Amino acid sequence: MKKSLGSKVYVYPTPVWVVGTYDREGKPNIMTVAWGGVVCSKPPCVGISLRQATYTYDCLMTKKAFTVSIPSRKYSAEADFIGMASGRDIDKFKETGLTAVRAEYVDAPFVDEFPIILECKLVHTLEIGLHTEFVGEIVDVKADSSVLNYIGVPEIEKINPMVYETGTQNYWALGDFIQKGFTSDRTRFSKD
Amino acid sequence: MKKSLGSKVYVYPTPVWVVGTYDREGKPNIMTVAWGGVVCSKPPCVGISLRQATYTYDCLMTKKAFTVSIPSRKYSAEADFIGMASGRDIDKFKETGLTAVRAEYVDAPFVDEFPIILECKLVHTLEIGLHTEFVGEIVDVKADSSVLNYIGVPEIEKINPMVYETGTQNYWALGDFIQKGFTSDRTRFSKD
Repeated sequence: MKKSLGSKVYVYPTPVWVVGTYDREGKPNIMTVAWGGVVCSKPPCVGISLRQATYTYDCLMTKKAFTVSIPSRKYSAEADFIGMASGRDIDKFKETGLTAVRAEYVDAPFVDEFPIILECKLVHTLEIGLHTEFVGEIVDVKADSSVLNYIGVPEIEKINPMVYETGTQNYWALGDFIQKGFTSDRTRFSKD
Repeated sequence: MKKSLGSKVYVYPTPVWVVGTYDREGKPNIMTVAWGGVVCSKPPCVGISLRQATYTYDCLMTKKAFTVSIPSRKYSAEADFIGMASGRDIDKFKETGLTAVRAEYVDAPFVDEFPIILECKLVHTLEIGLHTEFVGEIVDVKADSSVLNYIGVPEIEKINPMVYETGTQNYWALGDFIQKGFTSDRTRFSKD
């Protein structure tokens, strides 16, 4: 018998992504989000959700472009700080010592130290409630060679992305390999 | 210098969620999705993206309700199978031996064996491309007592959710605790 916990955001796992935008003056800004996910395969699109009160909201509405830089676990303190401070008050690149690089295809900056980044052009906005969802078409992915396998595909173990835990607000690392996808037949369901 | 990989869905991490719906005849159906995420805190909402070709798409359009059941890692084979087979052809509850339970607040079934479930009513649909995003308001979360801490909040380590790796299509487990969120000040950025 399950216990009812009410109308809550107890959702697992959620990602740790750093969203990069330029403000109206062209200053690079970053914020950390856990509200986001893939929303389409063709064209490849991600959705990220922001409160209107954030500095990034205004940047995104102005520039219609953003990047998603995915931090490795060694950047947990930076990712956490980037989610706490506002670009209205401080320069988060300067404070963290991270490097802003202009994206190649969209008018937004990415974080050079993070191993994989998505360059996104804004294609939809959806007002939901406290948060507005921004859907970005991924026009290019850029990655460090060190996270690619021998056929040039990124490997999650090398990226070492974090998982954010809603509710208790903790950051977690990636764990063990479990299994290949698209391999399970009907004979594999024994729990013994 | 980062390497350009083109317009791809190389996005990390993505979740492993089992979406439950009733079809037009009231038969319970489930499918596994990795395209999804939290999209709003107030009201609490999740988004999941489906192709129109899926059986669940029609069920969702008809019933305007769904559940998200989050499998523990020991159910990786079931989750994988539920993502491969179609409810048009087989009864996935019957094939996997999983138990369909009618949700309390919405017209959709959840998976009783999975430790935490979200009951969602459909509040938005957004056609993006190959996938349509369905935004559901989380009207209730239900969890096994075994995954709750002493104040009744779920703990991700007890839920033991999986991470899906796009590109290479692998399932991964949750790893180590890294740090508490909202604790990082400007003195913590040394990588030494």
